[in-house]
Amino acid sequence: MLHQTNLTVNAAGHLAIGGVDALALAAEYGTPLYVLDEDMVRGRMGLYAAAMKEHFPAGSRPLYASKALCCKALCRMAAEEGMGLDVVSAGEIHTALAAGADPAALCFHGNAKTEAAIRYALENRVGTLVADGPEELERIDRTAAAMGLRPRVLLRLTPGIDPHTFKAVNTGAVDVKFGVPIPTGQALEATKLALGLEHIALEGFHCHIGSQVFQSGPFRLEAEVMAAFLDQARRETGFTAKVLDLGGGFAVAYTPADPRPDLAGMLRETGRRLNVLFAALDYPAPAIWMEPGRSIVGDAGVTLYTVQNVKTVPGGSTYVALDGGMTDNPRYALYGARYSAAVADRAGQPEDAAVTLAGCCCESGDLIGENIPLQTPQTGDTVAVFVTGAYNYSMASNYNRVPRPPIAALRGGASRLIVRRETLEDLTMFDL
Amino acid sequence: MLHQTNLTVNAAGHLAIGGVDALALAAEYGTPLYVLDEDMVRGRMGLYAAAMKEHFPAGSRPLYASKALCCKALCRMAAEEGMGLDVVSAGEIHTALAAGADPAALCFHGNAKTEAAIRYALENRVGTLVADGPEELERIDRTAAAMGLRPRVLLRLTPGIDPHTFKAVNTGAVDVKFGVPIPTGQALEATKLALGLEHIALEGFHCHIGSQVFQSGPFRLEAEVMAAFLDQARRETGFTAKVLDLGGGFAVAYTPADPRPDLAGMLRETGRRLNVLFAALDYPAPAIWMEPGRSIVGDAGVTLYTVQNVKTVPGGSTYVALDGGMTDNPRYALYGARYSAAVADRAGQPEDAAVTLAGCCCESGDLIGENIPLQTPQTGDTVAVFVTGAYNYSMASNYNRVPRPPIAALRGGASRLIVRRETLEDLTMFDL
Repeated sequence: MLHQTNLTVNAAGHLAIGGVDALALAAEYGTPLYVLDEDMVRGRMGLYAAAMKEHFPAGSRPLYASKALCCKALCRMAAEEGMGLDVVSAGEIHTALAAGADPAALCFHGNAKTEAAIRYALENRVGTLVADGPEELERIDRTAAAMGLRPRVLLRLTPGIDPHTFKAVNTGAVDVKFGVPIPTGQALEATKLALGLEHIALEGFHCHIGSQVFQSGPFRLEAEVMAAFLDQARRETGFTAKVLDLGGGFAVAYTPADPRPDLAGMLRETGRRLNVLFAALDYPAPAIWMEPGRSIVGDAGVTLYTVQNVKTVPGGSTYVALDGGMTDNPRYALYGARYSAAVADRAGQPEDAAVTLAGCCCESGDLIGENIPLQTPQTGDTVAVFVTGAYNYSMASNYNRVPRPPIAALRGGASRLIVRRETLEDLTMFDL
Repeated sequence: MLHQTNLTVNAAGHLAIGGVDALALAAEYGTPLYVLDEDMVRGRMGLYAAAMKEHFPAGSRPLYASKALCCKALCRMAAEEGMGLDVVSAGEIHTALAAGADPAALCFHGNAKTEAAIRYALENRVGTLVADGPEELERIDRTAAAMGLRPRVLLRLTPGIDPHTFKAVNTGAVDVKFGVPIPTGQALEATKLALGLEHIALEGFHCHIGSQVFQSGPFRLEAEVMAAFLDQARRETGFTAKVLDLGGGFAVAYTPADPRPDLAGMLRETGRRLNVLFAALDYPAPAIWMEPGRSIVGDAGVTLYTVQNVKTVPGGSTYVALDGGMTDNPRYALYGARYSAAVADRAGQPEDAAVTLAGCCCESGDLIGENIPLQTPQTGDTVAVFVTGAYNYSMASNYNRVPRPPIAALRGGASRLIVRRETLEDLTMFDL
């Protein structure tokens, strides 16, 4: 079932993505192929930018979470659509700079920044660094001191919100590798530390509640916990935050069974709640940053594969062997993630089969999914797997020495490559 | 606990790998760093080659399963130590050829070979192709016909051995993406098909029972099931197999709690059983191929990381943040795989802590392991994670745009790089 508005069936009966015939894309660029609906990506980026301007405190802005899909073209799109960039490594900083991004728009995250990465960020005038804890605060301070700098820094806090129930809890949910826990009192101590460091310009705080949040409730709860902490920190240290970064987590619908998140509504309600909260505390409302990634690129992505063979085990499954798999999409292997799919050649026909989409790796667990409803597939068919824009290319590997596929972007009914296909020669480039 | 014979503590109190100081390696090549004990790898390759020569039917040989760790240097080692090469993609074929391997020694596996890959293999005179099923037999036949060739082919069968209990079963264990099931009668049909194809020279059969097999029993059972099938096929078609490829599956001990597999003993017992089986059937014993990968490189590998910070959550875990993680070793994220580790700086001291080794990716699940016994770690320490030679580099990704680490090989107390470190520039090479 084509559960997204940019997926249609054209006059030839083929799947069309953003109006472009999927078989024509497969013929032009080969398979496996990542397809990204750039119009949808830009629309989503614009939605975030506009909603945060309209409903959030002054100076608020969205930052694109590069980790969802990082390449130069995405960095350019984010800049053009009014977003900053959330980067998590020297490699993501390098990509953004290579794309011509304004370093001031970059916010550098990560729980284990090396001194070299911090120096690289400072040399390149990255706008904001997010310190993950007291050790990192001191490392940034030392590195900045040696360079005669005083970078803007956010401190990452762990608010104590259970990622499963999205209820505030005192312990448990803070036992993660990221950030400084609020409930244990460590967050306040780290704030005092940051304020005492000469080469740190503390701007505010960062937190993140989890992934695949379908409603505004958890974000409003996050805002409440963080606003209460800001108020406490102001009372105990006199520090007023200029920035509050609430991280990401906006959901996308992977299958027709998933609810459709109302992104505009979630943003509006979260923004309004923030304004009310800070007004009630008589706290000058900080600029709010949010870091969507998956919700911008996830459902804008489709992966096209060619069926290599079909095997039915009597009394068992039907295996549809594809020319890609866990190398380009490891999310079923990693998380048991669920996907929906269609035979692009006959996308309008009923899904009369339930199949296992199997990858081409020599590994039994290399599957895209099991029990996936599909038009009865035949060797040579093009299979489209939907909602693969996030955490597919970015997590891809060369396992089995399989080259990583290219990404074709669609804009205004035209296509172009934004990432090229790896060659066999590329695979041995690092071998000595 | 250093549970491998090539790991020692030197006079400085540091971990030594194959006699080489781990801290010196970290200083010379940087971290994260894969270290591979080449002496151990070559010793293991030699053990397989010698044991199969001594105990198995004439013409038997081991093939190195490249997918465990594929790079040019490993292909060269395999050739020098008397092993063929099990390759699973055009990329692995390319790597072997680029390393100067004899194409006749290559055996090309895979459940979803594209026509282009088959053509590439045939053009390069790859010695043997393993057809995964009837469709692939016909595809190889068609491709070979167009090229005027008649390649040697094995047919991959699914023997119906439960990978958990290692008992022969009639159904269930054949419901996998690989091969043609024996219990359903499909294997015999596919054999007849292969014998009727003009451009296929059927040499025999391939099968594989699973991973991490610690005793010879499952291999002997596999031999029995396959010998019975060979006998049946001979009676029904007159075909006598020249080759029986029993695949891989030999275990390695990942932690001190794992049993030590007796590789030489397993090979001796399996070889003897094969000789007895074929003699009893009055069947000219085929050359036996086996395809070890993990058991050759797994415990020869160590990954060195630098501790970036240590965080203890009151009432929770101690997180040791490393400069690598799921990007260089996704096996905990994928399988919950267990690893042992040591602080290389103080490897002889008691493991007085139990820690979570956390990777540097912006993902909560990016861990190398939890509750790992370790000398109390400090920022700046070098942490060694053991038994990372297999399915680490080969499965590595650039998630979060983290460069893949290099591999340093140790031979006779000296080290050299066999794979170089990726640079930031390498990361954007495919971006347009």
